[in-house]
Amino acid sequence: MSVRLIESLATTEPLADIFGDVSLIQAMLDFEVALARAQAQFKIIPPSAAAAIARKVQQEDAAAADFVHWGTTSQDAADTALVLLLKKAVPILDAGLLRIEKSLRKLAAKHKTTILMGRTLLQPAPPVTMALKAAGWSASIRRGRARLNLAAFEALIVQLGGASGTLAAMGNRGIQVAESMAKQLGLAFPDAPWHTHRDRLAELICACGILTGSLGKMARDISLLMQSEVGEAAEPVDDGRGGSSTMPQKRNPIASALTLAAASRVPGLTAAFLSQMVQEHERAVGGWQAEWPTVAAVIQSTGVAIASMAEAAEGLTVNPARMKQNLTATQGAIFAEKAALLLSQKTGREAAHQILERATDPGQLRNRTLSQTLAEIPEAQLEKGALSRLEDPRDYLGSANEFTNRLSRSRKNRARRGK
Amino acid sequence: MSVRLIESLATTEPLADIFGDVSLIQAMLDFEVALARAQAQFKIIPPSAAAAIARKVQQEDAAAADFVHWGTTSQDAADTALVLLLKKAVPILDAGLLRIEKSLRKLAAKHKTTILMGRTLLQPAPPVTMALKAAGWSASIRRGRARLNLAAFEALIVQLGGASGTLAAMGNRGIQVAESMAKQLGLAFPDAPWHTHRDRLAELICACGILTGSLGKMARDISLLMQSEVGEAAEPVDDGRGGSSTMPQKRNPIASALTLAAASRVPGLTAAFLSQMVQEHERAVGGWQAEWPTVAAVIQSTGVAIASMAEAAEGLTVNPARMKQNLTATQGAIFAEKAALLLSQKTGREAAHQILERATDPGQLRNRTLSQTLAEIPEAQLEKGALSRLEDPRDYLGSANEFTNRLSRSRKNRARRGK
Amino acid sequence: MSVRLIESLATTEPLADIFGDVSLIQAMLDFEVALARAQAQFKIIPPSAAAAIARKVQQEDAAAADFVHWGTTSQDAADTALVLLLKKAVPILDAGLLRIEKSLRKLAAKHKTTILMGRTLLQPAPPVTMALKAAGWSASIRRGRARLNLAAFEALIVQLGGASGTLAAMGNRGIQVAESMAKQLGLAFPDAPWHTHRDRLAELICACGILTGSLGKMARDISLLMQSEVGEAAEPVDDGRGGSSTMPQKRNPIASALTLAAASRVPGLTAAFLSQMVQEHERAVGGWQAEWPTVAAVIQSTGVAIASMAEAAEGLTVNPARMKQNLTATQGAIFAEKAALLLSQKTGREAAHQILERATDPGQLRNRTLSQTLAEIPEAQLEKGALSRLEDPRDYLGSANEFTNRLSRSRKNRARRGK
Amino acid sequence: MSVRLIESLATTEPLADIFGDVSLIQAMLDFEVALARAQAQFKIIPPSAAAAIARKVQQEDAAAADFVHWGTTSQDAADTALVLLLKKAVPILDAGLLRIEKSLRKLAAKHKTTILMGRTLLQPAPPVTMALKAAGWSASIRRGRARLNLAAFEALIVQLGGASGTLAAMGNRGIQVAESMAKQLGLAFPDAPWHTHRDRLAELICACGILTGSLGKMARDISLLMQSEVGEAAEPVDDGRGGSSTMPQKRNPIASALTLAAASRVPGLTAAFLSQMVQEHERAVGGWQAEWPTVAAVIQSTGVAIASMAEAAEGLTVNPARMKQNLTATQGAIFAEKAALLLSQKTGREAAHQILERATDPGQLRNRTLSQTLAEIPEAQLEKGALSRLEDPRDYLGSANEFTNRLSRSRKNRARRGK
Repeated sequence: MSVRLIESLATTEPLADIFGDVSLIQAMLDFEVALARAQAQFKIIPPSAAAAIARKVQQEDAAAADFVHWGTTSQDAADTALVLLLKKAVPILDAGLLRIEKSLRKLAAKHKTTILMGRTLLQPAPPVTMALKAAGWSASIRRGRARLNLAAFEALIVQLGGASGTLAAMGNRGIQVAESMAKQLGLAFPDAPWHTHRDRLAELICACGILTGSLGKMARDISLLMQSEVGEAAEPVDDGRGGSSTMPQKRNPIASALTLAAASRVPGLTAAFLSQMVQEHERAVGGWQAEWPTVAAVIQSTGVAIASMAEAAEGLTVNPARMKQNLTATQGAIFAEKAALLLSQKTGREAAHQILERATDPGQLRNRTLSQTLAEIPEAQLEKGALSRLEDPRDYLGSANEFTNRLSRSRKNRARRGK
Repeated sequence: MSVRLIESLATTEPLADIFGDVSLIQAMLDFEVALARAQAQFKIIPPSAAAAIARKVQQEDAAAADFVHWGTTSQDAADTALVLLLKKAVPILDAGLLRIEKSLRKLAAKHKTTILMGRTLLQPAPPVTMALKAAGWSASIRRGRARLNLAAFEALIVQLGGASGTLAAMGNRGIQVAESMAKQLGLAFPDAPWHTHRDRLAELICACGILTGSLGKMARDISLLMQSEVGEAAEPVDDGRGGSSTMPQKRNPIASALTLAAASRVPGLTAAFLSQMVQEHERAVGGWQAEWPTVAAVIQSTGVAIASMAEAAEGLTVNPARMKQNLTATQGAIFAEKAALLLSQKTGREAAHQILERATDPGQLRNRTLSQTLAEIPEAQLEKGALSRLEDPRDYLGSANEFTNRLSRSRKNRARRGK
Repeated sequence: MSVRLIESLATTEPLADIFGDVSLIQAMLDFEVALARAQAQFKIIPPSAAAAIARKVQQEDAAAADFVHWGTTSQDAADTALVLLLKKAVPILDAGLLRIEKSLRKLAAKHKTTILMGRTLLQPAPPVTMALKAAGWSASIRRGRARLNLAAFEALIVQLGGASGTLAAMGNRGIQVAESMAKQLGLAFPDAPWHTHRDRLAELICACGILTGSLGKMARDISLLMQSEVGEAAEPVDDGRGGSSTMPQKRNPIASALTLAAASRVPGLTAAFLSQMVQEHERAVGGWQAEWPTVAAVIQSTGVAIASMAEAAEGLTVNPARMKQNLTATQGAIFAEKAALLLSQKTGREAAHQILERATDPGQLRNRTLSQTLAEIPEAQLEKGALSRLEDPRDYLGSANEFTNRLSRSRKNRARRGK
Repeated sequence: MSVRLIESLATTEPLADIFGDVSLIQAMLDFEVALARAQAQFKIIPPSAAAAIARKVQQEDAAAADFVHWGTTSQDAADTALVLLLKKAVPILDAGLLRIEKSLRKLAAKHKTTILMGRTLLQPAPPVTMALKAAGWSASIRRGRARLNLAAFEALIVQLGGASGTLAAMGNRGIQVAESMAKQLGLAFPDAPWHTHRDRLAELICACGILTGSLGKMARDISLLMQSEVGEAAEPVDDGRGGSSTMPQKRNPIASALTLAAASRVPGLTAAFLSQMVQEHERAVGGWQAEWPTVAAVIQSTGVAIASMAEAAEGLTVNPARMKQNLTATQGAIFAEKAALLLSQKTGREAAHQILERATDPGQLRNRTLSQTLAEIPEAQLEKGALSRLEDPRDYLGSANEFTNRLSRSRKNRARRGK
């Protein structure tokens, strides 16, 4: 099925199909068929009508046509159809997230000892490992996946309430019908209809909003590491994608760009959904009509971000040599904290701070490293051994490895998953 | 502590205090004291320094002053302090939500047989009960409370990472220090620092966004029921509040107004938080600085909505007489669906629909009820008994009572609560 | 052209066509043709290539194919194409807005003396006229139209910058090429390329955000007036639209519902656009890719709101009898302010307030009007004439008519229009 | 006046004062005094009462107290007070914006020939000038200032409508009173009250939303240029600000951080305002109560961004040496487009593209420049002169200087300013 051009910037082909007309009409038919079967089961409509509806011949069969949509309201069909689309979409998101987690786990395992400078406020900071970076991305995305699945578990429910949400047209068999339908459609039936109680859908939308934030953080980091002046990592080169029409040699962070686009789009859509929750009485003025395009856009944008980061994670190139080179280029300035801690044990904190201010003056550090500078300051009485290890990044990683392990083995969020 | 005038529209006094200067400074001191004690325990700083810091005399004690904030970064203190404020704020929200649930449960119990017309797209629809309405509000708010507590359970964690999130300045004892601190402060320590992984806070913000949506739905319903032309329910009259400077007799829906204000404000703030999740590397440019005012505003606005709806729920006046009167005033039109169902069993759906179109013509219904009109249409062959019961709302409530019971006894969401 | 089902809730057919594939591809071709012609004019590419491109035969003509898109970047084509789509969309919005203004002007003219009760916080208030209400809607929409046209005037500009926004590949003839292109395409060329300066587009999006707010206010009012308990106005009955599958007699506020859906959707989309404005350097990571679906969604949702309110305005039914009846049903309570003002001239404000509190007690007003009640309170020394006119709404309209006239004749915003 | 700690991240001291209690109470008093004087002038209240109110002694003067707030509603005072605060705030924003424009104009003038590499998708691109960059920032901010002033011109209006917006309590002198008040307060009086027509305020909020986007773009660029690996520009070092508690030598982009915080916060607040525009009838449920904290937050956040970027612009350090060095480090790759254009004149576009793909292969460019590589490819028949000029950035600036001039001299937006 063809994806429309403008939309194609904000969806993937499988998700475009799911939210396309064919899929939507099928979901609505599934609703009607399950409804008719359930109603026949409880003798609300004749079995022959249900059979005709199930064969979709009801248009020629006037008697059967009478019983299509019996005792329900259009929002029943619309909401259930939307849920059926979501039921197809969520596993696609989940699978993509698992791809990312798996790739990042591999990446972390491979780069336990790959050291790069930390960066805070986009300025150099003490060293970290590539493994810690990848594990951090991964853990946040794993938590996001748990939220998504839990929210889906709550939200994948049949809507059936009839005109006022009491199923009055089905007498006292309404709940039995609803539960039969739910079983047929592979959904749950909640305590009651939820025509104007949209909190479960809202939780799913919010889960997507949080996920695109986490994916966007990963994408921002990658796009920054890909800068030619940094050159520490790169997205994979894809079949033509990422090429530039004006600069043939360019390797553009296309996956990151698409992910950042989603991450800047979904928050506003989330706000749109949340502000639509204030719905009147039994069914609202402008209720689900307002939600559908928003839900479709959120799920599809999230899907783009997931698919993009899955590609990026699977093919990410890491350049340890540039990492080392960039780290060395700081002339030891990123070890000023370490030096200050060592010094202050001897001189007190205030004096140590002053020594470091002198030692890390850009004029001082122009041609020498921090350890060389400190060696020339008499007050900076560091021992030779300490001085020589000062700028060894392996000596100043703190709990980086342990944090990486904790982030990687953490499965406790699993318990929250809906399945 | 005085609440500033403009802010006072979007906070309650207890929450204003929690996010006020005194409380914030105390939280930051708590962080420093817990840190110092933990560091003394693991011999990173001298016990005497920790003791001086704990006595807050460190400003006069230069040796102790050296060890304040040792090996940490300002975001460690800022994030942990924010979490400590949230730890005080969430129980206030929770208690308010419980008040609402309790009151609505009472309301539902009291009004099991109080019938009012349903309203869809703000037009008359088949009848519902006041109990079902209250149970619907309540269940959605209960689910929201579960989300809030679960999110708080995840988010109430110590931040401690130092300059680059590795706790390098604490050698190999960083995690022990962090866990000791967490214990002292009554928080958890997560797998790793979360300077630029803000998904747990985001979940808390989203939980508030969803809650204000559910509270806003309740407020919208109440404000609509309070219209003088409807007159079916009313907020309690408070000490002066709700009075009008120009119309002394007026009873304004003040609690609903404040709640609707929050419900229209929090979604945008939620979007602001989500779009701030894209944070660079180890600590971001404009990271937590952007979040603090947003988090404070979200929690406080949610608090206003909760406090307002608690008041409204506790003192809500229901007017069964007006409900009956409004229902009767529809001349039976809201039972057209019921009549159509009865008729179509005899005439088929299409014919029944046409009969009803004639019977519910406003000209027809002007002076007579639907049953009277139908009695005069020969094709409408309903039996006397069916006709006489046609406009009895008790006879067309479907599963309203069972839905109410299911919504009221539902405790399965409890399992999701963090405590 | 068929409109996809989910989208069809948030667009109109003409706008769906404009943002459809055929239209977009045509706009991109128009860009390439105009570029080629301009470049041929300034001898950057051979005239024969430009001619082949203009005949769209360039795919068979290898020499011409070489010169397609010469010296530009893909964002040049994408942005200019988007602008060309907007150039077609804005007049549709403008025409719809003019329809609304015209209908509301007629409505105001017709209902100068149609009096209804004012409503504040959804409670009864002193009377207003239907003309004032319509003129208020109209003026706000007229100001919105002025903003839209001004923003479009600024935003309908060619994008042409090449790889870095310097048009380097066109030597020193870049600006001439750009200006020739602009002329061909009926657009302006701004001071410089605007690849990462998106404020003009943002202004257009904001203009739509403000407009949907104004249209949503009108829709909210109409849907409230349409409540069966109020019954003071009604949307026109459309060919089938607005009918209910469960309640044949129902007249749903469909135009209002679609407008309110748009009004709750566009603010979040506006936030999405604004947060995408922070774009890096010469061209951003995730820049226009993020914007396109947002811009298309905003324009189309605004279009739905405009088309819906145009229909509603043109066919709005007003029911002066119900207005009078509802006003009378307040038993004079809405004239309490008037009574208080009259009384306080005699008794002072505080005493008047107290008298009114007694007089407007619901117990008092149950069977009598305010003037009857006051007549029985000895302290309430109002003259007979004043008492008898107290509840005449025509006697308490203040400047309603003058405000209506001022709102209707106001043309000063015209000056701001771009044309 | 002290600024609260959490808020202080999102306001400046002058703006905190303006939206503080003292200032707000003064604005409300100003409203009451102006009202009383106007009403005395038109004989609605006694001159003695107006005089007492003006002397603020009315609390002791019972007769005067009777006439405070006569015939108005609380929203009249609230809205007018808010407008009076905005009247004080906008010139502060305007002055800050002028500081930025002035500094950037100087910067552009100084760096007409300072060349740096362009960057698209955060990858190297053909060269631009620092002047063009500064002029681009400046022009977008100048357009934003024009929008702000125009919106303020429209929004700085008195609110006066009384209970239902008809000024009924003032008989037929309402408009005269309102116009007299407006004159006293230095505001305009619009066609009619605007209790539920909030589009003018919305325009002001949107203008701030657009401005923070433009300021955020500038801040993002600066923070990227400040990266140690780039080092092409730096924010000024402020008195202590920007220092790091863990890294004494660090120079943090604090102004950019605060601006980016504002730029990610204001869009959500803008959405909140826009979704609050749907206000019921004559005065809304949760109307201005919802707006005040939002308006205050938007103006203050915008103020932080303006003040921060003013500081940054005034003290921005540019490092032409690093710019040259970074540009050279691309080994000529950024001139691939230029080479392709030159080549394709000889070989056709497709062949040129293929040659460049080979020549810009990272393996090729490792130790040689693009011109050296091309010299060794036989098919790449570029003349010596062209080859030697290939990597001279001055030879590939296209219209950069002319664009800079056009952006700098552009004054046409001036016409749109309200003053």
